[in-house]
Amino acid sequence: MGLLTIDLKAVRENYRTLKALADKGCEVGAVVKAESYGLGAAKVSDALYKEGCRTFFIAKAHEIESLTDLPADTRVIVLNGYDPDYASLYATHQMIPTLGSLYEVEAYQSHQDLKHKPCFLKFCTEMNRAGLDKDEREAILADPSVLEGLDLKGLMAHFACADEPEHPMTEEQYETYSAIVPAFEEQYDGLERSLSNSFGMFRDDKYHFDLARPGMSLYGLNPTPYKKDNPMKPVVDLKLSVIRTRLIPKGEFTGYGATYRFEKDTPVALLSSGYADGIYRTLSNKGKVFWNGIVCPIRGRVSMDMIVVDLSDVPEADRPQAGQMMELIGPHQDADALADVAGTIGYEILTSLGDRYKRIYLD
Amino acid sequence: MGLLTIDLKAVRENYRTLKALADKGCEVGAVVKAESYGLGAAKVSDALYKEGCRTFFIAKAHEIESLTDLPADTRVIVLNGYDPDYASLYATHQMIPTLGSLYEVEAYQSHQDLKHKPCFLKFCTEMNRAGLDKDEREAILADPSVLEGLDLKGLMAHFACADEPEHPMTEEQYETYSAIVPAFEEQYDGLERSLSNSFGMFRDDKYHFDLARPGMSLYGLNPTPYKKDNPMKPVVDLKLSVIRTRLIPKGEFTGYGATYRFEKDTPVALLSSGYADGIYRTLSNKGKVFWNGIVCPIRGRVSMDMIVVDLSDVPEADRPQAGQMMELIGPHQDADALADVAGTIGYEILTSLGDRYKRIYLD
Repeated sequence: MGLLTIDLKAVRENYRTLKALADKGCEVGAVVKAESYGLGAAKVSDALYKEGCRTFFIAKAHEIESLTDLPADTRVIVLNGYDPDYASLYATHQMIPTLGSLYEVEAYQSHQDLKHKPCFLKFCTEMNRAGLDKDEREAILADPSVLEGLDLKGLMAHFACADEPEHPMTEEQYETYSAIVPAFEEQYDGLERSLSNSFGMFRDDKYHFDLARPGMSLYGLNPTPYKKDNPMKPVVDLKLSVIRTRLIPKGEFTGYGATYRFEKDTPVALLSSGYADGIYRTLSNKGKVFWNGIVCPIRGRVSMDMIVVDLSDVPEADRPQAGQMMELIGPHQDADALADVAGTIGYEILTSLGDRYKRIYLD
Repeated sequence: MGLLTIDLKAVRENYRTLKALADKGCEVGAVVKAESYGLGAAKVSDALYKEGCRTFFIAKAHEIESLTDLPADTRVIVLNGYDPDYASLYATHQMIPTLGSLYEVEAYQSHQDLKHKPCFLKFCTEMNRAGLDKDEREAILADPSVLEGLDLKGLMAHFACADEPEHPMTEEQYETYSAIVPAFEEQYDGLERSLSNSFGMFRDDKYHFDLARPGMSLYGLNPTPYKKDNPMKPVVDLKLSVIRTRLIPKGEFTGYGATYRFEKDTPVALLSSGYADGIYRTLSNKGKVFWNGIVCPIRGRVSMDMIVVDLSDVPEADRPQAGQMMELIGPHQDADALADVAGTIGYEILTSLGDRYKRIYLD
């Protein structure tokens, strides 16, 4: 089997770290979209609630189904906007959409079954992805009837490059957002301002405003990639069990396509997970697992359900045996480091872990 | 939303194609591991049962939980071997492990709660991944007590390179397997021989033996990649809805890291899915979606829940609007083609589709 251990104590500690970092008056919410980046939204949000978190962010309305056990003094904000295909979910669950177009504003307004219609507005700044354009913002300000019947709670924008300290766009986005906000505050009372993701929180207190939206840092990924040390506690530990070991003779190959040829007789272990478990095929002949801290490189292609790793550097007497477990993510290789070899980012590693590991939650 | 349509009629037609292809006397089973390569093992196996399929292959014992509605005249074979961590599942479900080491043979034998212990043996040939080594095979043949108490049903091996017609390993593996089998047939009655995956089935009738194990071809992936035409019917159709459209001004960027700069004012659509939905980050600035058959390239990085696509080549009057759906997998781009751009194979695309699409099954 594969054993995925998720340390909810570490998630809570990470939340406390973010709370301590947050500017005075800034509420710290938690992004739990995509099943809390693959770690389990129900468990994670429950742990964060105990730590005082009251605002949870999902991407798509149907993700609310993982959060139905949250107490009534919480709120759930939907980041991907208002999708009329999920209108019925807004009638049965308390959710606040983040409206990012006049189309969404109108669709949400015209929802017949809702009496109370809280919403955030999202603004497009230099990222040019989600959010209201300048023309749309001006249309809203020029004609208050555009938002009639809606209860505007806050104003949101999103950083594109806050992980790169030298990138000028972050400060530009801050300035654009800061210039947009006042006109709305003149017309609407008690608006919450929300700009920062994890990266933004660590960059500058002035980016914090009223409501921060960390995600990756809660899950132990590094919100300060430009520094050597990760200020967050690791959350994920992933071990793969050894199906069997064998000695592959010199000159033979392993795996699909026979892409790896052994230059000497080589002890290997066959491990119990593959790309259907989020072990990216790009790790073929590149990735590594660890045994007692010793590097064991992946040989040949990653299969759907198995990988083969090279035990050459492990002294013969200490080699892992069938049924024992080797480290894929843990003290010697965190999700960011694994992602780096796979040619992606830690986020994509976490969201791809899938359902076939045995999961243990530490709390 | 994203809309994932899985055509079970096509799965059934593909099964019929494989049955017609199979050598006389060869039973055609179905590999439904990893939730039928992400498409839903319960639905797929039910459809295949109606078509006459009676043998289903999973990778890990706990995957049986998706197959509990299968009628009693079916059997489920576990490809990743016997994992003692899942011993209790063998006591409550009818499953046949594929034993690939003496460790597994002994562990399965020592299972106290099983009276009837059917099994397959898997042999390691030139692939050097799973299966019994030569020494282990000889130990079994030399001492019948090694398998005492077990009901040996069949003998299995697996092709490594059958998708490459010029690769000599396929014929070598066939010869190795053919040389192993007779000694076992002398000692054990009624053994089923099983060698071919989808690729092997299309390569040569002599590879078919008694039991074939197609997977990918059932799901519409191409089992003859060396030919232009795919003999299988497409099974998967995936559409992504437009959250909004906008015009991005010349000189501006889109997405994380501001990796794509627009050289002219450009109409784009923001779509509702990202890498948490199996749209690989490697598709950033490389992948494409289709609108009425017109190519719309992905611009900027794939986000966790969104992508941005370029509508420049769509005539202005015909452009998609918020709420409409664009094709990611469908008539203009199958899973194999998408995989090719993402730097992987169709299998990995399918197993990564995840749980956030609305699913429709056609039957």
